[in-house]
Formats: sequence, C-alpha cells, structure tokens
Amino acid sequence: YLCKMITNDTIIAIATAPGMGAIAVLRLSGNDAINQVAQVFRGKTPLEKAPGYSLHYGSIMDEGNTLDEVVLSVFRGPKSYTGENVVEISCHGSIYIQQAILQLFLKRGVRLAEPGEFSMRSFFNGKMDLSQAEAVADLIHSESAASAKIALQQMRGGFSKELASLRDQLIYFASLIELELDFAEEDVEFANREQLEELLQEIENVLIRLSSSFAIGNAIKNGIPVSIVGAPNAGKSTLLNALLQDERAIVSEIAGTTRDTIEDEIEIDGLRFRFIDTAGLRQTDDVVESIGIRKAYEKIQQAEIVLYLYDATRKAEEIEAEYLDISQKTEGKKMLVLANKSDLNPPSKPSFIRHAYHQISAAHNQGLDEVQKALVNLVKGDKNIGQEVIVTNARHYQNLHLSLQTILRVKENLAMGVTGDFLALDVREALRYLGNITGAIEIDRDILGTIFGKFCIGK
Amino acid sequence: YLCKMITNDTIIAIATAPGMGAIAVLRLSGNDAINQVAQVFRGKTPLEKAPGYSLHYGSIMDEGNTLDEVVLSVFRGPKSYTGENVVEISCHGSIYIQQAILQLFLKRGVRLAEPGEFSMRSFFNGKMDLSQAEAVADLIHSESAASAKIALQQMRGGFSKELASLRDQLIYFASLIELELDFAEEDVEFANREQLEELLQEIENVLIRLSSSFAIGNAIKNGIPVSIVGAPNAGKSTLLNALLQDERAIVSEIAGTTRDTIEDEIEIDGLRFRFIDTAGLRQTDDVVESIGIRKAYEKIQQAEIVLYLYDATRKAEEIEAEYLDISQKTEGKKMLVLANKSDLNPPSKPSFIRHAYHQISAAHNQGLDEVQKALVNLVKGDKNIGQEVIVTNARHYQNLHLSLQTILRVKENLAMGVTGDFLALDVREALRYLGNITGAIEIDRDILGTIFGKFCIGK
Repeated sequence: YLCKMITNDTIIAIATAPGMGAIAVLRLSGNDAINQVAQVFRGKTPLEKAPGYSLHYGSIMDEGNTLDEVVLSVFRGPKSYTGENVVEISCHGSIYIQQAILQLFLKRGVRLAEPGEFSMRSFFNGKMDLSQAEAVADLIHSESAASAKIALQQMRGGFSKELASLRDQLIYFASLIELELDFAEEDVEFANREQLEELLQEIENVLIRLSSSFAIGNAIKNGIPVSIVGAPNAGKSTLLNALLQDERAIVSEIAGTTRDTIEDEIEIDGLRFRFIDTAGLRQTDDVVESIGIRKAYEKIQQAEIVLYLYDATRKAEEIEAEYLDISQKTEGKKMLVLANKSDLNPPSKPSFIRHAYHQISAAHNQGLDEVQKALVNLVKGDKNIGQEVIVTNARHYQNLHLSLQTILRVKENLAMGVTGDFLALDVREALRYLGNITGAIEIDRDILGTIFGKFCIGK
Repeated sequence: YLCKMITNDTIIAIATAPGMGAIAVLRLSGNDAINQVAQVFRGKTPLEKAPGYSLHYGSIMDEGNTLDEVVLSVFRGPKSYTGENVVEISCHGSIYIQQAILQLFLKRGVRLAEPGEFSMRSFFNGKMDLSQAEAVADLIHSESAASAKIALQQMRGGFSKELASLRDQLIYFASLIELELDFAEEDVEFANREQLEELLQEIENVLIRLSSSFAIGNAIKNGIPVSIVGAPNAGKSTLLNALLQDERAIVSEIAGTTRDTIEDEIEIDGLRFRFIDTAGLRQTDDVVESIGIRKAYEKIQQAEIVLYLYDATRKAEEIEAEYLDISQKTEGKKMLVLANKSDLNPPSKPSFIRHAYHQISAAHNQGLDEVQKALVNLVKGDKNIGQEVIVTNARHYQNLHLSLQTILRVKENLAMGVTGDFLALDVREALRYLGNITGAIEIDRDILGTIFGKFCIGK
C-alpha cells in the first residue's frame, strides 16, 4: 500500500460525494497528470501549455466520441494541493458519466487513488505536516461548527507550530548533551542544566495543557454525551423534546445533515450534544426494575455531563435524598440540577444543592435558554474554540501523553544529577514522541498507512 | 416560481451530490455573484478584478473567522454556463462546511436556487435552447452509455438544428401565405404551392423519422423491458443468472451505481435491459396455476422483447405447440427463440420456428455472447446511437406527433385547394408545436416551470 504511495505516478479519484449531483469532480495528481488529461481533452487551447490556476472548457473524448463536456481546473506543482501537477475535471454529475470518465483514465494506465493518497502526497511533498494532513480528514468529517473550527485551525498549522518550536529547543539541548558524551573524559558541560530545567518545565506545561484539552477536543469531535436523570415523571422526555424541538426549527433549514437518523442529538452554539436515554431512577423493591435502574447508572457512566431533573412540586426531603444519591453515583461528572415544573410553584434554590441550579418548565419552554447556555459553558469553560489549540486526535493525545511521561522522567533524572548519556536517551525518546505527531521524523510506514487509510478516497 | 427565475438576482446551490465527499462545490450565478463572493473571500488578489476562467485560492471568512480554505472558479458572463457571472466554490466536503457556506450566503441575501434555475437562466440568456436544456437534465440522470450519448448529442444541439431549419422554411411560407391574405382581393399567390408541397413532404418525413425514433429512445432512456418465457425447467433462471453474472464481473469495478438494488438489470453494449420475471408457462388444469400463467402473459405485454426459451431435449411436437401458442400470445413483440441445453443433444433449427433462433447452454455459458449481440441488434437495428438524432423526451414526442398531424392536415387541405386563410391557421399551429420543443416561441410559463422543476438543484 505505502510503497505505491511514495511514487509519483498519476492517480485519479472521484473527489465529490458519491451519487448523482448537478456536477461531479474527478481529481488527478502526478507529474504526468496534465499530459494524461491533455490526451483525451479537446478544447480551444492545448492543455499541455496551460498555466497553473487556469480553467478550460472542452470535451473529454473516448475513441472519437464525446464522453462529456467539462471544465478543467489546472494546477501546476508545487502550487497545488499535493505539490504535484493536479487537474480537476468538473463533469455532469450523472453516476454513469463519473464512472465512464474514471474508467477511461484507468484504461489509459492512470491508477485509482488509495484513500487519503492525495493528502499523503501533500505530506511527502512538504506541503503540510502530518497533524495538518490529519486535520484535513477531520475537517471533511466535521459535523459541527466547533469540530470544523478546531480541525481548520489544526490544518492551518496552529498545533504544529507550537510543537515544532518546543522540539527545536529540545533538539538543541539533545545535541549539546550528546556533544558532552564525545568529550566524556574531559567532564565538560555544554548544556546549561538550569536552562534545560526551565525548558523542560515549559514543555511540561504545554504538554499538560495540550493533553488536558483532549477531553474537550474529543467531546467536540464526537459529540458530548449528556444523560438526563431523575425520578419517573420528573419530565425527562418533555425536557428532551423541548430541547430537540428548539433545535429542529433551526436544523430544518439544513437539508442533508445526518441529524434525521440520530433523533437525540442537538447542536447548541456549534457543539453537538448527544443525549443518552436512561430509565427513571427511584428506590424500588422490584427486582426487575432495580436491574433497569442499575443499567441506567451504568449508562450514566458514559456521560460527560449529567442533567439531574426533579419535579419542583415534590417534597424537599424526598428531593434531598434523591439528589444526594445521584450526586454520589455520578461523582466526578459535570452536573446541572434542573428544578422542573417551577412555573407551578416557583421554589427558591434548596440549600442542600451544591451544583449549578436552574428553574425551568420543560412543558412551557421556560428557562431552556439558560440550560443551553449552561451546557455550552460546562464544555467550553473559558476556552476560545478556533483560537486556542485543542487536541482532538487520539493518536496525538497518546503521543503527547508519552512525551509528558518522558519529560517528567528527564526532569527527575536531571534533579538527581544522572549522567548525560542517560539524559540523552530520554530526551531522544521525548523527541520521537513529539515528532510522531507532526511527522517530523521518519515515521513507521505502517502507522502512515493507518493514518491515511482512514481518509475518504479523493482527498 | 417562474417570476423569480426571470430576474438576475444572485442565486446559490450546492452543485455536487448530497453527502460527505473529499470536496464539494457550491455554485453562485448572477450579475452580482463575483462581488458577493469577494465580500467574504480573503485571497492574494482582489476577486472583483479576477478575469473569467481563473482560479483563486483563499479563505471564506465569516465575521472574522475562517470558515474554510477554498478554491474559487470565476466565470464572467456571457462566457459562463448561465451567461451571467458565475463563481464556483470548491470547499472541503464535510456536510457541515457545505451547509455553513450555503447559510453564510443566504444570510447575506443570496437566494437559494430553484431546481433547474441555472439551466433556465442559460435558456433565457440564449446559451441553449429548451431541448438542449432538457438534455442537461437527461445527461445528469443518464444511467447507461447509450442514454448519456443521446442526451449529450441533444445537449450539443443536434436535435435543435434539424427542427430549427424546418421551422425557418415553414415560417417563410407562413408569411408568404399571410401576405396573400393582405392582398386577398387581388387574388395573387406569393407562396409557390408546389414548393410548399415539397417542403411539407420533407417535414413529414423528418417528423415521422423523429417520432418513430421515440420508441427506441424511450427504451434506451428507461431501460428495455425483456421477458424470458418458457415452460418450467426450461432454464429461465439459469439463463438470467448467466446473463447477470457475465455482467457482474464488469459491473463490480463500478462502485456506487444503483445496479445493486435492481437485481435484474444488465447493461450490454451501453444499453440497459430490464428483465421481467414470469412464471413458467404450461398447459394446466389447475385453476390457481392458470391464474398465475394468465398474469405472466399480462406481464409479457409490458415487454419490448420476448426471450422464448425451451429445453432442446424435449420432443419436437411439444415444442411446436408451445412455440405457436407463445408466438400468438406475444404477437407484435420482438422475439428471440433460444434452444437451451443444446450441449446435451445439439439440435438443428426446427422448421416451424420463424423467429431469430440461437442454440445455447445457459448452465455452461455457451451461446450467450450471441444472445447478447442479438438483443442489442433488436434494439439498435441500424441506428447509430450518438450520431443519429433519437427522441427520448415524451414532451418532444408529443409535440412532434401533434406537428405531424397538423402537417398532414395542411397537405390534405393544400391538395383540396382550400384558401390561404385556412392554410395559414394550420401552418401557424404546426409552427407552434415545433417551437414548443426548442422554446423558440413564447412558451407557457407553467410548462417551463414543469420542465425545469424536474432538474436537480444546482443545475
């Protein structure tokens, strides 16, 4: 798979979504891409001499017959997505025509691109680093404003710059320490230990910040799991419907989103919240029901946020017992307490509640705006999505985490005064983990295959 | 619907297939299209001054934030698809991003295009006539090589030229005849009656040729219905599977065609054949079974071609009776007779068979190539698909048919020596029917709405 990828033979793929559309786009890349298209294209001017960033109207010919009338976009490497010559063929969007043009080029020896191969060529040609290339896939798969913003920021290199700068400084120290090893008998110290300590502290801070952003990053990328818990008849379904309904009005303008099939997802302020259904919770002697309730608690463990809803017209002591029980069982989760049916008998905040508290009436759509704002706040905190670097990729998180472990070990060893050769080993290891993220070092080809294999074809 | 269409306000639509792809394309058209995009685009050079047929890399901005990095194709009217200024935005193909860019422009007052509105503008701006615009929709919906070729030929005007030339000549005569009416009292004849007669004959020939091509044109566009009939155990299913299997090997390379859901369609030499299942036919006294067999004969009526299959190892007199019965019940249909299991006991052609005859072995894949060729021949005859004008559109056929009726009436009246005022009425009527096809005359706006409403959005 990968051996093929490092060549610069000409590849082709349908780059637009599968199926029929008004138009479709096929993309070719490779040193020979322009010539390949020129051989089957009949236009006003010869394509071979077309400058980069030019458009050309004409016909794709197959054995003397016109296959379709198309518009070509010509890009000349290195000023193209892949860094190679690239031609995009914008054709009529019938499935038949898309396939006929694709088959025409395959017949002529152009190779069908592997998933992610265009982006991989971009990476190999130095157009983007690995984390940027991964961000392209994230961007294509993004389903909310927040996840698109984070992917875009990563694609534009925000992420890579920070890591690259730290790596450069660490490489500098690594080489100084290794230089010391060459002069081992003379017992000199080229690497200033205090400066190294400062740098390690700085790297530690950044790594902690980046890896701790993964919790929110992952939640934003995959949707934030929220469970609504409470006694039967507290109004859980009414609340969910009210939240969904509000959103439906906005969503209905947007055709073609996947929302329709996932009934219990809503997007608020660019974040996707994924609601987890739970059974009504209550003390019960019924064996079967208590199994249901235990399962509900298990499901709650998957949630990032718990919405605890109670009927505000119930007795305070009942609510207190329920609240304490639920807080205990959901410990460590973010929680919002919602006093429902507050329009019937407006209560004051019970003194025993220690979580954020809102009075609502799910049935009358009261207080829901505040709940939505509170949900968004719980996720974003003071983070400025799209500006701040947020890690969304599990592979990056893993490498950040491993770098952090190693950096902490270096710090410890440095404090204990271990010799340069041991320090050098650990520093090199930390450099490797950091380099894994941006592809700055020689990366295992299997890993590259895995990364780009997840892309959709045509990118 | 239509009133909006005749304006040249700026419209936008997602032009690629719905769903996620590597890239997606949004299309804007209108005098203000370039300026509209310029206001949210941040690139190297100002877009307002971009020449036609140029590409531009940059960012789509929304309130200071980058929404996506895109490539723009700029076309300046009249050298564009619609004849107006057109910008195509090639963005990352996430559903979220497609929608976000669409919403951005809607928010800024660009209008969502109606289905077919881009092609309709092309028609109103004289870039193509009505039958050409309709061919664009056919091309997008084409599912086989033959239907794509015919649509493409029609889109390129092959159809229109022929009709336009006839209409011009007829208009000439119409005006001469009408001139006579102004000089009615002087009893002159400006229009040479013999030349008119010749022209009418020529028009009649063309109209007959065009409207008779509709049978094949319609079959090619919608698939050619074929039924395989024969006694139980003649090998009908084996034959169908053998035909499908052959095709499967070719088809399997082509991802995303709809073939998977329609199990009994195959494409041979660019033509789609649609097989109609029928029960095994035999003489029976069983009441229930004979109802089934009657239904099978009803289904056969939907077929364009009948494949009559029999087991060649059976007795000749049985086969003769069956053949005569089936020929009678399928009279008027094209038929191929296939002697199956011919490998077991190679028979000579029975003398009573008057249809095209092939010896095959469905189980051993023998003789199937000849059957496929024969099927294609039955449809195409001596027609050169893609070169010859073939009518595929029911609306065109209807108008051709009505013109023909009227032309025949004019001929008759001419022979009977009726007066110019009566002739003129009929000639005008024929002109109207012909003009309906290419949109050369003022067409009822409801009709235009119906035609373009069938397009997909973005075209």
